[in-house]
Amino acid sequence: MSRPVHGGNLVWAAAIARCSPRELLDFSASISPLGPPHSVSEAIQAAFSSVVAYPDPAYGSLRGAIAQHHQISSDYILPGNGAAELLTWAARDFSEQAQLCFQLSPNFSDYDRALRAFNVPTQNIPLLTASGWQLQNWDRLLLKAIPKGMKARNCGILLNNPHNPTGALFAKAQVRALADQFGLVIVDEAFMDFLPPERSQSVIEWVGDLPNLVVLRSLTKFYSMPGIRLGYAIAQPSVLQRWQQWRDPWSVNTLAAAAGVAAIADAPFQTKTWDWLKTSSEQLFAGLQALPGLAPLPSSANFFLVACQVSATALQQQLLARHQIYIRDCMSFAALGDRYFRVAVKTPEDHQRLLAALADVLPSLPICS
Amino acid sequence: MSRPVHGGNLVWAAAIARCSPRELLDFSASISPLGPPHSVSEAIQAAFSSVVAYPDPAYGSLRGAIAQHHQISSDYILPGNGAAELLTWAARDFSEQAQLCFQLSPNFSDYDRALRAFNVPTQNIPLLTASGWQLQNWDRLLLKAIPKGMKARNCGILLNNPHNPTGALFAKAQVRALADQFGLVIVDEAFMDFLPPERSQSVIEWVGDLPNLVVLRSLTKFYSMPGIRLGYAIAQPSVLQRWQQWRDPWSVNTLAAAAGVAAIADAPFQTKTWDWLKTSSEQLFAGLQALPGLAPLPSSANFFLVACQVSATALQQQLLARHQIYIRDCMSFAALGDRYFRVAVKTPEDHQRLLAALADVLPSLPICS
Repeated sequence: MSRPVHGGNLVWAAAIARCSPRELLDFSASISPLGPPHSVSEAIQAAFSSVVAYPDPAYGSLRGAIAQHHQISSDYILPGNGAAELLTWAARDFSEQAQLCFQLSPNFSDYDRALRAFNVPTQNIPLLTASGWQLQNWDRLLLKAIPKGMKARNCGILLNNPHNPTGALFAKAQVRALADQFGLVIVDEAFMDFLPPERSQSVIEWVGDLPNLVVLRSLTKFYSMPGIRLGYAIAQPSVLQRWQQWRDPWSVNTLAAAAGVAAIADAPFQTKTWDWLKTSSEQLFAGLQALPGLAPLPSSANFFLVACQVSATALQQQLLARHQIYIRDCMSFAALGDRYFRVAVKTPEDHQRLLAALADVLPSLPICS
Repeated sequence: MSRPVHGGNLVWAAAIARCSPRELLDFSASISPLGPPHSVSEAIQAAFSSVVAYPDPAYGSLRGAIAQHHQISSDYILPGNGAAELLTWAARDFSEQAQLCFQLSPNFSDYDRALRAFNVPTQNIPLLTASGWQLQNWDRLLLKAIPKGMKARNCGILLNNPHNPTGALFAKAQVRALADQFGLVIVDEAFMDFLPPERSQSVIEWVGDLPNLVVLRSLTKFYSMPGIRLGYAIAQPSVLQRWQQWRDPWSVNTLAAAAGVAAIADAPFQTKTWDWLKTSSEQLFAGLQALPGLAPLPSSANFFLVACQVSATALQQQLLARHQIYIRDCMSFAALGDRYFRVAVKTPEDHQRLLAALADVLPSLPICS
């Protein structure tokens, strides 16, 4: 079995760990350990009898629930078969509207998949340079990178906030300033819901002003249901009508739609998640920092990128083989290579197992120069 | 609420019928009344605990089950979020490989959606001409339609067999002869599983010989789970690897994948369906034929296209308002207009209700010239 390009390939990892996928302790996928909420299981049960019919192609109930959550009109919402499906149509838009599309590097590798599918010319803005991480002034680097003779309004930006894999949270004012200049700006806010409202840097509030701004959201990370495939785009209706013309009419599964209606209205689960993340992420960060040879980056999301002095793939292998613990190597993030890994924030007990396993394995691996 | 482009929009129809979508007697969507099989409900229940993980991006279990069913290698299988998702990538392939793509007309309207998304130049071969339906010699009409100076090997064909909405079954030798000449031939066999093996005209057996032949299959019509979204492509591995590069890595929902594994292995359900369809379709055909002003076309699928002397949209409206019965108007099939409707084969009791309602409503509608 070949190494998976993306994280989250439990079948591959379980084979190395010589256990079933369920027996793995999975830190590789950035999924909350608290869910799925009971409201979601109940909604899926109740919706089962509806699978004999096609989904409502307007996805009225789901769009209504999302609209209410964000206090916007449901015309501004398009649900998708995961944010990944919506990325496909974002790329289709870039291919017609942008001579060049900027991305930050490292970046979620599915962006490249989507952009390549439509032959979109892209340029990476490296966040990791010879002088270290550039997580504050990425916007200035981006502006400087516009080739001579090309105008910002003929370029696009595909951005991730909070940023995966670093966990950096970019100021919404930075994003707004770029959206005021660039032709098309797609902001993947897949992890923004992990921030409580008072800390959010979402740009949803500006979608009404800016026809060139699209926000993508995921419902599978916060609500722990990546198997369900559910995300949505927020943009002006003309953008969403265009995307909808291109894609098939029933891309969201009936059970997924029902799960989404329940999840997004589940305020107690949201509060519980914010409470859990604050204490748990502080504990995991401190634990990782205390281990010799590891340097986690501060993160606003539910994962940490960790620099290490050993080979991250060797470390991953050893943690699987000796402890049935699966961390995310960063080989799919071309800019990072073998000296970084990523771990999800989970429960204090799981963190103890991870930290103990790291303390066991790290000394056995050679330091790379 | 505007008239739905596709059939199966129960929300729209229920509003006219002044009842809940569940109370409608739905003849509009060509879905078997026998399912979903128990095996599917059980598989979905059992899979629910797996939604906390991403789907296996290789979809190993699902591809294995499909491969076993067709007695081919699983490298030849690509599952999709409904056959509709796979149509998107078929269209992407046409856009690079075909100067012109032929379709039969009338045709499933989602073909146009997919082909337009990639700006594929298309040409329709009308099956309904001044001299009536051309359901035997469609292949000769298609060959004659190749523009002068253009070669068949630079053209594509997107075909549906059995054909929707007529229900006509094309001989596999006809399809094979075209696949031997044309650059890319996609055969949507969404309704082929309704034919027992001895009557099947599937071209799956030739996919191993022909790198330019792709078969699309649906798992939602035969197994009555259109809300689940599940289909698959059968083609040579190089084709499927190309499609997979373009699309997002987890397009099939975990619950849908589990449902597919159970459904395709359910031989008793398959036999039961073939038995039901034979007797039920004969009964419905005879009943429709006996009504003055109606002329159903013979069909090899689980639906009938019916020519009528009254306005089909007026008939649809009256059946909804007076009998809560939903038939499919054919307005989305541009070639047919308002003088045809389509009904699914259901149970003898449902057929009696439909036939009685038609007998009640038809005399009240003006004959169109």
